[in-house]
Amino acid sequence: MKQEIIPNETSISRKPFPGSKKIFVDGKLYKIKVAMREIRLSDTVDTDGTIYKNDPITVYDTSGPFTDPSVEIDVKIGVPKIRESWIEDRNDCERLDKFSSEYCNQRIADKNLDYLRFDHLNKHPLKAKKGKEISQLYYAKQGIITPEMEYIAIRENQKIDMMDDIGHQHEGESFGANTPKSHITPEFVRDEVARGRAIIPANINHPESEPMIIGRNFLVKINSNIGNSPLSSSIHEEVEKAVWSFRWGADTIMDLSTGENIHETREWIVRNSPVPVGTVPLYQALEKVKGDVEKLTWEIYRDTLIEQAEQGVDYFTIHAGLLWEHIPMTSKRMTGIVSRGGSIMAKWCLLHHQENFLFTKFDEICEILAAYDVGVSLGDGLRPGAIADANDKAQFGELKTLGLLTKTAWKHNVQVLIEGPGHVPMHKVKENMDLQLEHCMEAPFYTLGPLTTDIAPGYDHITSAIGGAMIAWFGAAMLCYVTPKEHLGLPEKEDVKVGVITYKLAAHAADLAKGHPGAQVRDNAMSKARFEFRWRDQFNIALDSETAIKYHDATLPDEGSKTSHFCSMCGEHFCSMKSTREVRDLAKKLAEKSEDFKAKGGDIYIKS
Amino acid sequence: MKQEIIPNETSISRKPFPGSKKIFVDGKLYKIKVAMREIRLSDTVDTDGTIYKNDPITVYDTSGPFTDPSVEIDVKIGVPKIRESWIEDRNDCERLDKFSSEYCNQRIADKNLDYLRFDHLNKHPLKAKKGKEISQLYYAKQGIITPEMEYIAIRENQKIDMMDDIGHQHEGESFGANTPKSHITPEFVRDEVARGRAIIPANINHPESEPMIIGRNFLVKINSNIGNSPLSSSIHEEVEKAVWSFRWGADTIMDLSTGENIHETREWIVRNSPVPVGTVPLYQALEKVKGDVEKLTWEIYRDTLIEQAEQGVDYFTIHAGLLWEHIPMTSKRMTGIVSRGGSIMAKWCLLHHQENFLFTKFDEICEILAAYDVGVSLGDGLRPGAIADANDKAQFGELKTLGLLTKTAWKHNVQVLIEGPGHVPMHKVKENMDLQLEHCMEAPFYTLGPLTTDIAPGYDHITSAIGGAMIAWFGAAMLCYVTPKEHLGLPEKEDVKVGVITYKLAAHAADLAKGHPGAQVRDNAMSKARFEFRWRDQFNIALDSETAIKYHDATLPDEGSKTSHFCSMCGEHFCSMKSTREVRDLAKKLAEKSEDFKAKGGDIYIKS
Repeated sequence: MKQEIIPNETSISRKPFPGSKKIFVDGKLYKIKVAMREIRLSDTVDTDGTIYKNDPITVYDTSGPFTDPSVEIDVKIGVPKIRESWIEDRNDCERLDKFSSEYCNQRIADKNLDYLRFDHLNKHPLKAKKGKEISQLYYAKQGIITPEMEYIAIRENQKIDMMDDIGHQHEGESFGANTPKSHITPEFVRDEVARGRAIIPANINHPESEPMIIGRNFLVKINSNIGNSPLSSSIHEEVEKAVWSFRWGADTIMDLSTGENIHETREWIVRNSPVPVGTVPLYQALEKVKGDVEKLTWEIYRDTLIEQAEQGVDYFTIHAGLLWEHIPMTSKRMTGIVSRGGSIMAKWCLLHHQENFLFTKFDEICEILAAYDVGVSLGDGLRPGAIADANDKAQFGELKTLGLLTKTAWKHNVQVLIEGPGHVPMHKVKENMDLQLEHCMEAPFYTLGPLTTDIAPGYDHITSAIGGAMIAWFGAAMLCYVTPKEHLGLPEKEDVKVGVITYKLAAHAADLAKGHPGAQVRDNAMSKARFEFRWRDQFNIALDSETAIKYHDATLPDEGSKTSHFCSMCGEHFCSMKSTREVRDLAKKLAEKSEDFKAKGGDIYIKS
Repeated sequence: MKQEIIPNETSISRKPFPGSKKIFVDGKLYKIKVAMREIRLSDTVDTDGTIYKNDPITVYDTSGPFTDPSVEIDVKIGVPKIRESWIEDRNDCERLDKFSSEYCNQRIADKNLDYLRFDHLNKHPLKAKKGKEISQLYYAKQGIITPEMEYIAIRENQKIDMMDDIGHQHEGESFGANTPKSHITPEFVRDEVARGRAIIPANINHPESEPMIIGRNFLVKINSNIGNSPLSSSIHEEVEKAVWSFRWGADTIMDLSTGENIHETREWIVRNSPVPVGTVPLYQALEKVKGDVEKLTWEIYRDTLIEQAEQGVDYFTIHAGLLWEHIPMTSKRMTGIVSRGGSIMAKWCLLHHQENFLFTKFDEICEILAAYDVGVSLGDGLRPGAIADANDKAQFGELKTLGLLTKTAWKHNVQVLIEGPGHVPMHKVKENMDLQLEHCMEAPFYTLGPLTTDIAPGYDHITSAIGGAMIAWFGAAMLCYVTPKEHLGLPEKEDVKVGVITYKLAAHAADLAKGHPGAQVRDNAMSKARFEFRWRDQFNIALDSETAIKYHDATLPDEGSKTSHFCSMCGEHFCSMKSTREVRDLAKKLAEKSEDFKAKGGDIYIKS
């Protein structure tokens, strides 16, 4: 039984990226090694036979040690704890004798669960020492640059700060954001975090995570949702979906498990996650009362927060902005309240005739989060679930409340994300961003799409990539992916990949549009390789090399076609790239030989 | 041999749409029957058991008779010629004794080609009588409303003009377009065509085509490219790809064949096409000189125009705007000239030291086109093929020339489309639209995407759907689809479907954003069905019912799950739609019974 349920290394994705190697850039302020992926490029062979070298390009890499063949990984131990010593060196946390959550301790005592328990469980979680503030926001406000901040600055730069010339890049339009001019410095990271304009999700109990940042002045990030549902999935499948998500580019993952054994599932995921992990603690709290919303209490919820914080969850979605007064505003909606957390809390309010306890207890919640540096992602319980419901009073009423809660969280030095919609037609997307900036003082916006039409189930990764790319351009800092299975069923491994790649390209399209420094380097490398028929390089530079090769090889599978000057799309005589090269050669030769050609203005071809 | 190459009815897609029927709306000015698709909806069962009927919805249908089980189709004869009598009634055309194209007559005389020839070839093409003007643009300018125009008005309305209440729709933002207030009238169609702001591609030799319109004040249209390449595909495959394109929503198709037997292939396609067919005549002209650009002449090209016009091609892409002076402007580009036609003509100019003959002979070209009512789609030979090359001098220099050519074409009563890019980062998309409107006097813009990043081969249907949805919102009238195989190989049947559906959703997202009347009806029907767990209705309303069902059934295949109040995505306890319904019921009951609840403001839930 155990073999089927718990992860097993041999079936976890560990393939290195093609034509690439893992490289490490050293820190200057701290002894840190920042992992990146370097893609080797083959030589350019000019039409006259001259050979030019092409420098490798360096890209952001979320895959962690899983794509590094030199690292041995034992999923039963978890991935290396790169932040452990950094946290210890700060000397402001203490190791507890045991977990503080009652539920957690019950689970640990239950021998029946031994068969699916994480093998090397650390029973001594970290917590801030009494009277100490330990969040990245706190450090930033004090003017302290942490190793996490330096790591992020180096990571975001993808080595463009070390290049003599990054090549052509269009000037962007970033709608008044504070887009860095040339590259990111550790001080810039600190300053953005201090202003609350960016967050570093970094629970002290998740030392395995490679530091990353979410903010409108950094690369746009994406989140992948995983987690079992009562109807399917084992721990093994979920860990593999997580590793699979990192591989294709998920910057964070959210474990939205709602079935059995979610405490144990989460432990396996967090220990093997080099990216921050988010959750919606309400889901587990509701499981604890067997789905009976009426029985949900603050005490159960509070214990769940502590349980998950001590496991190492980096940010919690908390639907604290949905108030009693907002509920009636949803009564005429096409699809009511479509956020799971939102609908649960609305029901709780009505059953208890009371205000949402996530709102009334928000100070206490922040105190808990601050002790572990868990970020709060203020949930949009009233996001629209239909085009018809977009941008209504309920939605924007809640958004305003999220702004108030942001101030409270910041007072407690808790880092804040704001969640956003949902289903929104294109022309109403920008209003979401503008109001979010206004009400929430530039706290990073984290949106689900938005989907720009309701009529394409099976393709909602695309309906939402359209809205997602747009809102990220307008200023959203992170996009929550949507898979092709949205509205239809639980995503499987292949759906997760399609969702991640789709969002990766949407996020990148936004980086280009904002004019983020160096964003165009990868596009330029791809286009140059394309023009020079370096097919292998094209595959290697692609976000999804495997699919690119598969599609190319569907018609021209032989090795020779990897260097030929055409593909099956247009064939040899109609390849425009081939023709253009001939046009250039022709123009050169003519300019050299023909006076007549020069007279007709042909030589400007050469001069231009 | 014949069986493998030429189409055979049994393997052409003829499945009717699920839960739907073909309906026909009668004309008022003319005896015409406009085909549409009606989707039946099942009843709403309220939580208290009350049953409400849901009216069927009517949607635009490009599938022609292929999805109508009451029509027998013989691909050897072609689809019904619905426009034949309308054209005859105008009495301004004559039937020729034989084809006017030399090449065409050679092909017909060649017995070796009999085995793949269209069985019921009509050897008497139509042409305008001497001195007669016969284009829809000419009629429109004269104040004449043609049956084509009335057909289009009825078709575009999708019966919203017959509904008492179309339900909620957001007000749109259409950037100064002349978006109709409530519905489309035949006079509105005429007026838009007369202004050149919309075109009706309707070759008098393609009476099989169901009239449709392309213009910024109508529903956004999409085009699907088919056609064999020298490396693959038989006539059979191409006809099936065409029928397959109509089924999923292609408003026009372009036959971009470049291999063997393209004359015969085209005949099969046109005779079986209920949508307008476009081509790039240059491709065939180049085949006639065996790919040797130097041997290309005006005479060969001219004969090709006539050959294709007499077969019934509805619009020609002609790269007449690429001038000698533009060529040097591409010399520093990342990917040079990526339009096939553009690179051929650039090469021709340099080889002959002459100006592009498509430009110098443009008046003569227009005279030919006017005699058959073939529209001209002015090709963007200098569109950018890389993010780096977007919006450069070469591109916009050509665009300006396209504006001049537009005036010439209009003078000849030739209907005009303007082709657009290409690869453009999001923040530079709008400039393309704005300059096109300015230079080309609102002639409809027909764009390929644009792709918003270069780094995702295998997903370029998505990188381009982002740019496509945006530019259509800004005013582009038709989008040329991009398939997942773009840059990698020739699309197969499944790729064609994914490309068409992706573009259909992008076009629809744009209709919603522009606030096109009635655009939201289908979204509202979908969302209502979703909220009420009418799963079958959701599948039937979806752009791609088959995929929606397949994804749903991947985890919950049994029939009972088609009515159950949850799906495998969140499971039963976490279904927000289910919770919301409970919230509403709860609020109602509380409001009825509890004074305390009312005192707390609960009754506003009911009143709101």
